[in-house]
Amino acid sequence: MIQRRLSKVIRIGDVTVGGEAPIRVQSMTKTDTRNTRATIRQIQELKDCGCELVRIAVPDRETAEAIPIIKRNSSLPLIADIHFDYRLALIALQAGIDGLRLNPGNISDPEQIAKIVHIAKERQVPIRVGVNAGSLPPAPKPDIPIAEHMVKTALAQVEFLEKLDFDLIKISLKAFDVPATIEAYQMIAGKTTHPLHLGITEAGLPRTGSLRSAVGIGILLYQGIGDTIRVSLSAHPCEEVAIAYEILKSLNLREHGPILVSCPSCGRAEVDIIALAEAVDKELKGITKPVKVAVMGCIVNGPGEAKDADVGIACGKGKGAIFRKGKVVGSVEEKDFLGVLMKKVFEIVR
Amino acid sequence: MIQRRLSKVIRIGDVTVGGEAPIRVQSMTKTDTRNTRATIRQIQELKDCGCELVRIAVPDRETAEAIPIIKRNSSLPLIADIHFDYRLALIALQAGIDGLRLNPGNISDPEQIAKIVHIAKERQVPIRVGVNAGSLPPAPKPDIPIAEHMVKTALAQVEFLEKLDFDLIKISLKAFDVPATIEAYQMIAGKTTHPLHLGITEAGLPRTGSLRSAVGIGILLYQGIGDTIRVSLSAHPCEEVAIAYEILKSLNLREHGPILVSCPSCGRAEVDIIALAEAVDKELKGITKPVKVAVMGCIVNGPGEAKDADVGIACGKGKGAIFRKGKVVGSVEEKDFLGVLMKKVFEIVR
Repeated sequence: MIQRRLSKVIRIGDVTVGGEAPIRVQSMTKTDTRNTRATIRQIQELKDCGCELVRIAVPDRETAEAIPIIKRNSSLPLIADIHFDYRLALIALQAGIDGLRLNPGNISDPEQIAKIVHIAKERQVPIRVGVNAGSLPPAPKPDIPIAEHMVKTALAQVEFLEKLDFDLIKISLKAFDVPATIEAYQMIAGKTTHPLHLGITEAGLPRTGSLRSAVGIGILLYQGIGDTIRVSLSAHPCEEVAIAYEILKSLNLREHGPILVSCPSCGRAEVDIIALAEAVDKELKGITKPVKVAVMGCIVNGPGEAKDADVGIACGKGKGAIFRKGKVVGSVEEKDFLGVLMKKVFEIVR
Repeated sequence: MIQRRLSKVIRIGDVTVGGEAPIRVQSMTKTDTRNTRATIRQIQELKDCGCELVRIAVPDRETAEAIPIIKRNSSLPLIADIHFDYRLALIALQAGIDGLRLNPGNISDPEQIAKIVHIAKERQVPIRVGVNAGSLPPAPKPDIPIAEHMVKTALAQVEFLEKLDFDLIKISLKAFDVPATIEAYQMIAGKTTHPLHLGITEAGLPRTGSLRSAVGIGILLYQGIGDTIRVSLSAHPCEEVAIAYEILKSLNLREHGPILVSCPSCGRAEVDIIALAEAVDKELKGITKPVKVAVMGCIVNGPGEAKDADVGIACGKGKGAIFRKGKVVGSVEEKDFLGVLMKKVFEIVR
C-alpha cells in the first residue's frame, strides 16, 4: 500500500541502503568510544538485537585512534560521527570506517570537505549530510522557516559533494519539532534522489521519546519517505532498535519477532486480560520469528476481532477458546490459559 | 500547519466535539460496571489525569441498571457501549447517559435502531457508529478490502440515522492493522462531515500498543482527520490518556504538562545524561503546566539544539550551563545539576 520514494542505492559496509532495500534500522553507541572494549561489546549487543548500522562519536584525535581496533572487532558497519575537525574524518577513513556523518553546521570549509571527499571517494565510503535543527549555519535571510533552512543547508553541501563527482550520499534533517521535521523531509524528498535517514532528535526518555519518534517517523514512512531510521532516546541503544522495529512493524514494512494483539479489557471482560497479556508478552520474549498472537477478553467478539492472528485465546469466565486464523480449534480451562496458548505458539515457531 | 478537516459540532454532556473544538481525549473504564463504587472511582481517576470523555461497557441488564448511580457520580460525560441487545441502549438513555456507541456489526435491525434513535433524538444524545474490523456484518461482495467494508458498514448505518432525521453522529472505523485503519478513515473523511473518533483496536500492551497507536493516530491527525482519540491499551486507562496526550503534543495539537527534551547521549557525553534525564523526568511528574525542559550532553551544541526549551542544562565534565530559550544564563557545578535546573523550572511554572 505504501509506495516508497525511489532513491539511489548506496552500500555502507555490506549493508545496502535505498532503492528497494529494506528500511534499515540504525543506532549509535553510548559508550566512551576510547573505551574500545565497552564499545565493541555494545556494538555486539546492537547486532544481537537487530541493529543493522551503528554510528560512533569521534570527538577528538584520541577517539579517532581507537577506530582501527573497534572496526576490526565490529560485527556491524561502522559510521563515524564527525563535528568541527575535518582531520578526524581523514583518520576515520584511513582506519577503514564504513561511513561518515558530517554536520554541515559544524564543518563547512570547502577545502576541508574536499579533502574528506577525495579519500571517501577513493575508498567508496558514503557520507551522510546530517543536518540538525539546533546546529545550523547562520540563516541566509531573517525569518526563514526552520524546515527551509535545514533543507537549504543540506542541499548546499550535497551540491558541493556532487560537484566533486561524489555520489555516495545520504541525507538527514532532524529536529525535535515533529511538524518541522516532516516538512523538511517532504521538501527535500522531491529535490534529490539520495537516500534519506529519518530521525527526531533529542526525543527524550523512552516513554515520551518513542511516541514522538513513532509519530514523526511513522508519518514520513507512510508517505514513502525514508531509507534508514534511528530512534534517538535517552536509553540503552537496544531500546532504540526495539522501538524502530515496532514502528516499521506497525506499517507492515518489516517483520521482527512476535506481534501481540491484545484487547484493552473493559467491563465485559470476565478474566484479568491485562495480567494474561503481560504473562504472554514475557513468554514471547525469546522468540525471534514473526508470529502474531492474540489475547482477547470476549468469547463472542474475540476470534473475529483477531482473525488474522496465527494463534489466539478468547477468554470467558473459567473457560477460553483457542483459535487459529479466526477459527476456534479448542477450548481450555482458565488455569491452563497461558500454558496451552504458549504451547500452540511454540508449535508454530518451531 | 495541520489543516483540520471541517466536521460538524456535537456535544457529549458538556464537552464539544468536532469543528474547532480541541481534539478530545477519550478512554474507557476497565472495572466491572456493576461494581459502581470501583467504576465511579476509576472515572474520577480518569478525570484527574486529563480524560475528557469516558465510555463504560453495558453488556447486560444488570449493568444497565447500574448506570443511574454511576451517572449521578460521574465527573465526566458518560458513553454507554452497546452490543447485541438494543434494549440496553434504551435503558441507558432513560438513565441519562450522555452518549451511545453502537456497533453496526452487532446491532443492525432497523426497527431496533429506530427505537433507540427516537429516544436519543428526544434527549439530544449523540450516537457513535462504532465499526470494528473484527465484528463486521457479512461482506456485501467477496474479496472486498477491509477498509472499504468498514466504510460501507458505517455509512449504511449513518444514512439510516440521517433518514430518521438524526444528526448527532460520530463515526469510528477501528482495526488492528494500521494501514487498513488509515485507509478507512481517509475514505470516509471525504464522504461525510460527521466528527470522527480515532483508534487502533486491540493495540496490545503499553510498550508496543502505544507505538502502534502513535503511528496510526499520528498519521491521521497529521492529515487533519480526527476529532476525538482513544488509545486502546491492555493497561490502566490513565495510561491510555497519558499516551493520547503525548501523541497530540508531538504534533503541537494540545498542551498537557511538561515536555522533556533530552539527547540520546553518545561517546561525546562526559556525564551520565540518561540518569540525569530520568531524575528530571521524575521531578517533573507533579507539574501540570506546559513547560519545555532540556537535558543536553554537549556544552557546545546543547543550548542551540534545544533553543526553544523554556529552560535547559548543557552538561560538560564537572560543570554545566543553564540556558533559557537558547541563551546561557548561568553555570552550575555537576553536583547541583538537578537542583539548580529544577529550581529554574519551578520559577517558570509558578
